[in-house]
Amino acid sequence: MKKITVCMDRLCDHHRSQILRAAEAAGYTADFFSTPDDARESAAESEIILADRDALLPYAEQLKWFCASFAGVDHLLRSPYLKESVLLSNSSGAYGVTISEHIVMVILMLLRRQMEYTEIVREHSWKRNLPVRSIRGSRIVIIGTGDIGHETACRLRAFAPASIEGINRSGRGADPAFDRIQSTESLDSLLPEADILIMCIPGTREAYHLMNAERLQRMQKHAMIINVGRGQSLDQEALVGLLKENRLGGAALDVFETEPVPPDDPVWTCPGLLVTPHCSGNTSLGYTVDRIVDLFCEDLERYVQGLPLLRTVDRKLGY
Amino acid sequence: MKKITVCMDRLCDHHRSQILRAAEAAGYTADFFSTPDDARESAAESEIILADRDALLPYAEQLKWFCASFAGVDHLLRSPYLKESVLLSNSSGAYGVTISEHIVMVILMLLRRQMEYTEIVREHSWKRNLPVRSIRGSRIVIIGTGDIGHETACRLRAFAPASIEGINRSGRGADPAFDRIQSTESLDSLLPEADILIMCIPGTREAYHLMNAERLQRMQKHAMIINVGRGQSLDQEALVGLLKENRLGGAALDVFETEPVPPDDPVWTCPGLLVTPHCSGNTSLGYTVDRIVDLFCEDLERYVQGLPLLRTVDRKLGY
Repeated sequence: MKKITVCMDRLCDHHRSQILRAAEAAGYTADFFSTPDDARESAAESEIILADRDALLPYAEQLKWFCASFAGVDHLLRSPYLKESVLLSNSSGAYGVTISEHIVMVILMLLRRQMEYTEIVREHSWKRNLPVRSIRGSRIVIIGTGDIGHETACRLRAFAPASIEGINRSGRGADPAFDRIQSTESLDSLLPEADILIMCIPGTREAYHLMNAERLQRMQKHAMIINVGRGQSLDQEALVGLLKENRLGGAALDVFETEPVPPDDPVWTCPGLLVTPHCSGNTSLGYTVDRIVDLFCEDLERYVQGLPLLRTVDRKLGY
Repeated sequence: MKKITVCMDRLCDHHRSQILRAAEAAGYTADFFSTPDDARESAAESEIILADRDALLPYAEQLKWFCASFAGVDHLLRSPYLKESVLLSNSSGAYGVTISEHIVMVILMLLRRQMEYTEIVREHSWKRNLPVRSIRGSRIVIIGTGDIGHETACRLRAFAPASIEGINRSGRGADPAFDRIQSTESLDSLLPEADILIMCIPGTREAYHLMNAERLQRMQKHAMIINVGRGQSLDQEALVGLLKENRLGGAALDVFETEPVPPDDPVWTCPGLLVTPHCSGNTSLGYTVDRIVDLFCEDLERYVQGLPLLRTVDRKLGY
């Protein structure tokens, strides 16, 4: 019988049952592992792998379809063990809820000076009149109009911003969560008016330093930048420089050019910079795992029917 | 000519112009001060005072209407200088935007373990798999269905909670931001199922320790409590006890039974307790001051026409 290997850290019994049912319906067996070390033997015999890292690729000799339980596959695409012939899909669509909640949290923390209030409270002090700002009336630009950008725009909409502009590669898309969707070419004209810039794009070659020093300098002195996509999309050194010179209103980075961030990296101590350790898309949220399993089962049904997968990665584009 | 004294900390020129125009139209002059010390003489001759504290009351011999620029008038109602004959109004309706943003921020910080991540980042460490939770699918109970409760419900709605129940004194009100509005009598039956409890009610006698030890014990082990109304509505000692025993999921207090919180108070170091120094309704947000001025001018027009003010305080109810 044809085999599926599932190697994921956080599956519950109901997730396993759901995958087993879908596998059986498709004519497959499925075996479950939480670490790649235990899964090697099974992976060697499997036609399909659903996994939360790429460690099984060297052993997967009969592999036809690799489904990543994560969304950003830039690391995976650099693996020498990923054969041309293997179909590659990701779990884009599973992370919008958790990452959009992270984005709203850090925006509010920056606007409401929560990093400073944390210090005040740490000293058991009662200073309470720091000037705060609001999402209400703010002009928001979101680079990346996929699942994460969409869910973020939906939530921010409820806070009555002045506008939410979406930016993506093609400028295509009709999503009412955005006031407009435009192509990357429009970015330069939007930046000087943006109050809040949110970056949620994959780590493609094309996006390398999309927010470079010159673009960062186009932004207003009070503007804030949030990056949850990939660190490479933003010139981190230029950002730290501008924050140190008080030429930006603040930033929240969950992704970095080097991860883990080295202990002596300037980002840790940069003023106005809210650092989180790449935790915004944490699969510790049960709902995220629910979605990963749903999306895999949906694509498994399509796979056996010979239909194109809904979340196929375009290796050239990188997402 | 009849006089208005305005004593507020954060007025801009356009606020003063707006009040001057409204005063002139009503047949009044208006004088502006930022501290009560400077305003005493003017207050003594004024029929109307708009102020951000009660320090002028002892001097206001000709006072007919006192408009508080704040919303919670419990302190004011205890002043021996507030004559029975004086009409009292507040600025309820000015704080919903800023306080609802605070509430969403602290809910997300509790759900996403941001206090722990702050410590991790402080140590330049890269631990990143703390179990997080989501507003999505959560059952939310909001005690207080006025401006703050309404604005909070509108924003939380966009995060797809399972339900948002509103609680107020009468159980009356038809606000589509809530799934239902019920009276305080329904609280006991709602508490055992609530994931997130939000308290935004005024500091009335009736509300004293509304959330007492017994009600707190009815809540689920993972439940979270947010209080932005008045510290007296919640048995703070009981809350700290339950948090220390890990019998509640977390709490965020912006208001306390004693303010400023004494430097050795247990709340500062209580695990799972996010303390902010009564800053959620900070008037440092320009929009809040815009609203205070709008609401005052609106009620001034009604005052001269002999109509009831829209934000009259019922001294018996205390709000």
